[in-house]
Amino acid sequence: MQQAQVSSTLVNGVDVDKLYGTIDTVKRAPVVATFRFRANNTWMGGGHNRTTIQNFYGTQQDHQRPEPFTLDADEPPVLLGEDHGPNPVEYVLTALAACVTTSIVYHAAARGITINAMESRLEGDLDLQGFLGIRDDVPRGYKQIRMFVKIDADAPPEKLEELVKLGPTYSPVYDTITRAVPVSVQLDK
Amino acid sequence: MQQAQVSSTLVNGVDVDKLYGTIDTVKRAPVVATFRFRANNTWMGGGHNRTTIQNFYGTQQDHQRPEPFTLDADEPPVLLGEDHGPNPVEYVLTALAACVTTSIVYHAAARGITINAMESRLEGDLDLQGFLGIRDDVPRGYKQIRMFVKIDADAPPEKLEELVKLGPTYSPVYDTITRAVPVSVQLDK
Repeated sequence: MQQAQVSSTLVNGVDVDKLYGTIDTVKRAPVVATFRFRANNTWMGGGHNRTTIQNFYGTQQDHQRPEPFTLDADEPPVLLGEDHGPNPVEYVLTALAACVTTSIVYHAAARGITINAMESRLEGDLDLQGFLGIRDDVPRGYKQIRMFVKIDADAPPEKLEELVKLGPTYSPVYDTITRAVPVSVQLDK
Repeated sequence: MQQAQVSSTLVNGVDVDKLYGTIDTVKRAPVVATFRFRANNTWMGGGHNRTTIQNFYGTQQDHQRPEPFTLDADEPPVLLGEDHGPNPVEYVLTALAACVTTSIVYHAAARGITINAMESRLEGDLDLQGFLGIRDDVPRGYKQIRMFVKIDADAPPEKLEELVKLGPTYSPVYDTITRAVPVSVQLDK
């Protein structure tokens, strides 16, 4: 990242001094940047299941929130569920929206660029013939995802395109979706 | 899918008659299987943003829930946030857990296999040197994700491995993560 040219330590709600402190620490000891995130899921019946998120490993120690976050997933009635929550592929859009947004906000802060407001809308195309096992040549997952970002920042209009590009350039979730990431699923005996 | 050998229409909480009805409908008119899922996101400040999920397109019509689902994302303090919600990469694990679980449940139901209980735990490895822009040769996203599934089903122990494999075989989110899916992020003018 480029050095911020700001007097205040807080830009876009991000503590830039701490951000550069983190970067310096990681440069000295890269092991600090090794993170392991975790989730637990319980099947509730039909298309309904519940994920809890509470602890993770990073900066060479375990971190535990006082209470877990609880996230319900289900399918809508047209997909034989009862709408107890968003469905799994809607959670993918949520992850992407959140990550691209945060990546823009943090990297803009590091550059001293103030963002006043940001909103986005996303859409993803999926052909259920894959999931249903009707056609093996149809991918099970998203064929394509599009994200449209509205941004109000203290930057000239021609710089806004550059600002939005910080998202795909740095976002871990954008990278996870656009790159083929290895996933193992195995029986826990 | 193979035809279910069951007398009841409900297996694992999934209406198998409706499931086979859907498959028959899609076989006759594949356009019915074309879905478009949607999400909207608003930046709240710092690492905190909020996604709402309400409508989607599928079976040749728009579907709208009466109220939107609201999902907050944030970073933990060690990543300069305030823990208003899980972070974006934790949402990826949530999407994967939910999707693999539902894929096993639905495809087991189609085969007439009763599942009594299912739980899973997931972990994903990430090196923040990528996100921080310290090293360009380090991927921004997950290096690897592992999911461990505990399953109690009316099937002999040697069949449980097969049952778990239904997840990676059919799950749209597993496919989205393990395949390189195109994502466009653009300025919404």
